[in-house]
Amino acid sequence: MLADTLAAIRAADPAAIAEARALQDRLTKPRGSLGVLEDVAARLAGAAGACPPPLPTPAALAIFAADHGVHAAGVTPWPQEVTVQMVANFLAGGAVANAFAAQAGVPVTVVDVGVAADLPDAPALVKRKIGYGTADLSRGPAMTVDQAVRAMEAGIEVARDLVAGGARCLITGDMGIANTTASAALISVFTGADPAEVTGRGTGIDDETYERKVGIVREALRVNGLPGGTSGAPGASGASGASASEALRALAAVGGFEHAALAGFILGGAAARVPVLLDGVIAGAAALVAAALDPSALDHCVAGHRSAEPGHAAALAHLGLHPLVDLELRLGEGTGALLAHPVLCAAVRVMHEVATFDSAGVTEKPV
Amino acid sequence: MLADTLAAIRAADPAAIAEARALQDRLTKPRGSLGVLEDVAARLAGAAGACPPPLPTPAALAIFAADHGVHAAGVTPWPQEVTVQMVANFLAGGAVANAFAAQAGVPVTVVDVGVAADLPDAPALVKRKIGYGTADLSRGPAMTVDQAVRAMEAGIEVARDLVAGGARCLITGDMGIANTTASAALISVFTGADPAEVTGRGTGIDDETYERKVGIVREALRVNGLPGGTSGAPGASGASGASASEALRALAAVGGFEHAALAGFILGGAAARVPVLLDGVIAGAAALVAAALDPSALDHCVAGHRSAEPGHAAALAHLGLHPLVDLELRLGEGTGALLAHPVLCAAVRVMHEVATFDSAGVTEKPV
Repeated sequence: MLADTLAAIRAADPAAIAEARALQDRLTKPRGSLGVLEDVAARLAGAAGACPPPLPTPAALAIFAADHGVHAAGVTPWPQEVTVQMVANFLAGGAVANAFAAQAGVPVTVVDVGVAADLPDAPALVKRKIGYGTADLSRGPAMTVDQAVRAMEAGIEVARDLVAGGARCLITGDMGIANTTASAALISVFTGADPAEVTGRGTGIDDETYERKVGIVREALRVNGLPGGTSGAPGASGASGASASEALRALAAVGGFEHAALAGFILGGAAARVPVLLDGVIAGAAALVAAALDPSALDHCVAGHRSAEPGHAAALAHLGLHPLVDLELRLGEGTGALLAHPVLCAAVRVMHEVATFDSAGVTEKPV
Repeated sequence: MLADTLAAIRAADPAAIAEARALQDRLTKPRGSLGVLEDVAARLAGAAGACPPPLPTPAALAIFAADHGVHAAGVTPWPQEVTVQMVANFLAGGAVANAFAAQAGVPVTVVDVGVAADLPDAPALVKRKIGYGTADLSRGPAMTVDQAVRAMEAGIEVARDLVAGGARCLITGDMGIANTTASAALISVFTGADPAEVTGRGTGIDDETYERKVGIVREALRVNGLPGGTSGAPGASGASGASASEALRALAAVGGFEHAALAGFILGGAAARVPVLLDGVIAGAAALVAAALDPSALDHCVAGHRSAEPGHAAALAHLGLHPLVDLELRLGEGTGALLAHPVLCAAVRVMHEVATFDSAGVTEKPV
């Protein structure tokens, strides 16, 4: 399934991008006056191979939830059981992601790919548990490669099912206590940045815990024989030029089940030519994995926001993505991407609805 | 009417702000993890004097349109007739503001406060023309003080009528070829920044036009005997500590009819305790005027976005407002504020809908 998905991904169509730019220049507004929105709308035209591109609505949010063996190493003051408690909160509609999804008119699906507890059935819950949490990435591989591939396939299937259900934009969400530690390790491996540069305070940790967290990320790379921090300069080295098998090995070694599933979700959206709106640092780490497997997958991704986590900025810079929302959020769950969804719709809507200088009888500025 | 409106404005309620902060800390998310959104939601609680504050919806956009005598001085390559053409485009639903308003579910009202042409009646058009464009601000006062006050009163009345019609958030919009020149002059006067620091390229002008535009702003201040650029440091001087009569004289001297109307619109919203979502540099200049008349009016304002115009950043810094959207837009019309409206709703919605640690049975991080 992974191979078929990768084979189905198409790169952006440069003709559709050029057509989008030309259309934008005929609309009743000064050229370029919509700034970043003109770039992102042209990007979606390229991804869809059509100008104007389809409106990215209805959208669907998938929150991939999992636990992490590295929690035992003391990287966060939050108890691990908060993962399963927050899954219940999502399913009851009580989390911030639910409020933001309601605001954006987006339905919420929760996917258990590795929560360390059995979950009762619920209409919005998809059960694809690969394990009861990963192993501790600072003592050896967090997952086997087989587990990582199965988690990716779960993400691909969720993307496929949501698109089959009518979704025209996939929004990434995540839940997993300690998952910023795995994200920092992945970002260090795939960008070449030093662990100290890409490890953040996650949901809020003190200096002592932060120092321990950086050390654990460094140890994870050493124990698993991975590059990372070899240059100190993001993009200068790292595994972004790695073979698919090297990328999968790195993902399995220091990722989480939700990172693997999100990488699959991104590839699944790209294969279906449906734009994937990325949330924060967890999605950024997953996008690095997806891009290592097929750089064209990135053509179908939009950065919803930039989180307060330093690793996220490093990931976005490496991916060459410009965030739509930049409000110092550091919550995850898909919250930043949900805020960006109406902005993305507005950017595309312009190309469908705005009059041209000719059609509106507005005098164009002399060139 | 202006005096009554000023008398009705109340400063933010610190108790409601404190209550909002305490509520935010009990919700199922790490403390502070919503970044700027927690600040803006607490701000709206203070403005409303209630926690949680009312949802800022339904909203209403008012686009204040007017022409500018300074157009004759060659500050823009766009012909003046584009103002009236764009008014027709707004009324036909063909402008970017219409597309963004449709995306946000916000109705559009256009207010003619000084377009240099007679306009046919239309359901969404409010006719409050003060004159057929202002006089050239680089040769003397753009308006009389009486005209400026009448334009402000038009803005107050539009705010009052929209609130009476059910609006719970007022969104500022503007249209007026050459209105970034008047904005730069107002911002220079009210922040004390030099004209060269706050004059931008508006809808896109070449170097020669830009140099002329800066010179015209400087000449406008000189001819009208106004401060501005006396310090080079925004906030270090300027008319923000000016008396009401000094502020009105500055507005009349170098403002536009739409700036005056927008200042009234802001004061009207503040008097009704309905939040005013500010668009770009034109609204920023108007907010400086409103704040000079009553600093408490600012407690009811939210900065929708930061435009690419340098004067806007200076105005926001002087006003102490943090923008919600920052996407290099430079279009006006209310477009930046319209993008921010769903974000503002999401910020407030959190306080109405998200479960607390207690209610959701989620374990809180040990302090």
